Amino acid sequence: MGHGGGGQLSAELVQHLFLPAFGEAARTATPTDAHVLELGNGVRLAFSTDTYVVRPLFFPGGNIGELAVYGTVNDLAMRGAQPLALSTGFVLEEGLEMDVLGRIATSMGVAALNAGVQLVTGDTKVVERGHGDGVYINTAGIGLLPDGVDIRPERARPGDVVIVSGEIGLHGIAVLSLREGLEFGTELRSDTAPLNHLVAAMLAACADIHVLRDPTRGGLAASLCEIAETAQVGIEFEERSLPVPEAVRAACGFLGLDPIHVANEGKLVAFVAPDHADQVLAAMAATDVGSRSTVIGRVVEGHAGVVVARTGFGSTRIVDRPLGEQLPRIC
Amino acid sequence: MGHGGGGQLSAELVQHLFLPAFGEAARTATPTDAHVLELGNGVRLAFSTDTYVVRPLFFPGGNIGELAVYGTVNDLAMRGAQPLALSTGFVLEEGLEMDVLGRIATSMGVAALNAGVQLVTGDTKVVERGHGDGVYINTAGIGLLPDGVDIRPERARPGDVVIVSGEIGLHGIAVLSLREGLEFGTELRSDTAPLNHLVAAMLAACADIHVLRDPTRGGLAASLCEIAETAQVGIEFEERSLPVPEAVRAACGFLGLDPIHVANEGKLVAFVAPDHADQVLAAMAATDVGSRSTVIGRVVEGHAGVVVARTGFGSTRIVDRPLGEQLPRIC
Repeated sequence: MGHGGGGQLSAELVQHLFLPAFGEAARTATPTDAHVLELGNGVRLAFSTDTYVVRPLFFPGGNIGELAVYGTVNDLAMRGAQPLALSTGFVLEEGLEMDVLGRIATSMGVAALNAGVQLVTGDTKVVERGHGDGVYINTAGIGLLPDGVDIRPERARPGDVVIVSGEIGLHGIAVLSLREGLEFGTELRSDTAPLNHLVAAMLAACADIHVLRDPTRGGLAASLCEIAETAQVGIEFEERSLPVPEAVRAACGFLGLDPIHVANEGKLVAFVAPDHADQVLAAMAATDVGSRSTVIGRVVEGHAGVVVARTGFGSTRIVDRPLGEQLPRIC
Repeated sequence: MGHGGGGQLSAELVQHLFLPAFGEAARTATPTDAHVLELGNGVRLAFSTDTYVVRPLFFPGGNIGELAVYGTVNDLAMRGAQPLALSTGFVLEEGLEMDVLGRIATSMGVAALNAGVQLVTGDTKVVERGHGDGVYINTAGIGLLPDGVDIRPERARPGDVVIVSGEIGLHGIAVLSLREGLEFGTELRSDTAPLNHLVAAMLAACADIHVLRDPTRGGLAASLCEIAETAQVGIEFEERSLPVPEAVRAACGFLGLDPIHVANEGKLVAFVAPDHADQVLAAMAATDVGSRSTVIGRVVEGHAGVVVARTGFGSTRIVDRPLGEQLPRIC
């Protein structure tokens, strides 16, 4: 199960199995949310995919269909692309109620309209009972990159300010609470949301954003560690500056989880040059999904490849990626 | 199970559930193998997806990984696009052996090189034992359309010659034979192959090809019926002109199947104007995968929307799409 968790084992599966096996056909040397292709005539296209196996299919604040649309829209947005079109691939388990599938598909239509993206091509397979879990959904997406935009983890550099677009940990804890029958407060709803409009507002304020990442599986910790490793820079953040809702903090304490390892589905982390931080933060704060954006840390000269958290007691600790699967099938 | 079979029930699921549910967000009014988007600056992109759930994972002539690459490459080629890049989305069942996954991924790399396509972005999810079946693979693909190419089912018109690129029924019978432990002859191997090089050769001979389709799930019958319905034309073919290998014919007789309902994974059916038929056929015959191409029928003025087979006894019969699932999980 750990190989699907978005942590260290997931990364190793890519580095040590998929990339060597794909050989020369592979073009995924560094981890990014979406790949960018030059199509000629100045057209640059971002392309991404994700399969969604979240359990249960419906959870507070969303469902698997909405997640499948927003998740891939967000992966494209993390390269600065404006999403154009999604494909949808369904694996249905025999016996799934048509009514349930209809509700999921309706949510996908609404989500696509919210994100301003079209659902243009699809496929449906059916597997026997006991070979699926209701429905799994793959979406792949394409989007166009505006001229001059170059957003990728390699561009993190010392001095960059690290901004998070709002409260963390909501999606993972909302899904887990429902699954485990736990009750941590009524405000625990998934933060599932499209981030492309937020990114457009950020790019309007400053075209030279260095890095964007949506901290889904593996949480903020996995995103920061991956960026630090890819760019070979150090990252520091203040633990107490992390926007963690009280209910998420309580749930994490009870469950023995760290909020920075918990999945988000409507948040991003941005790296921008210090001169641009104020204008980007202001642009983020003026949007609905980014209204609680805040600076959490910065990129530093030292400890290349390592993320360090400053605790409330003035000490520091090294932040690791989760090894495997803390919260299975969270997305 | 029938809703995944590529027959009438699959079509109804799209028309009566997905399209109404997706609402304004949907852009898939007519059935095509891939959707074409205009990106501006004269760039036209084809975009397609398929999820592969074939069982068993390895079969004579191929495996799920090769199928996942060629299948989506072929969907793009059926619009005349030259495939550029694929995404790969894996759903792994807990307990799948890494060695098996490695062999599948290696096949995908080789297949991608054969087709001249890059594997640029991917995702892996893991589900618990009893919620998958080893591995399911989604691929989505993008490809560029050459200028002036306009291949879609609506363009079938009376007089068009219908060409099939080789022997039919091999993939479905090869997979089914293995699964059921049947033995129909050593030559029964899946025809899994990339069709994009064949299509490039055809377009070099004649840019004005009207329709292309790869008869996968639902077989040649489903492809012809869909084209007849979409273009509102009649299609006629000679049953005895169908290239059906003797072993496929024997297996179909034994199993009570009609070869025109059996899935192919390396064949296409082409509709071309009568003036261009000879040159297209010659170009096809000069390629490896199309060396046994042959004319099977034509588009007629009468019986709009209906496919008619002329039998060996001089009589005719109406060809229907299979209702549901003749051969479950064939791709």
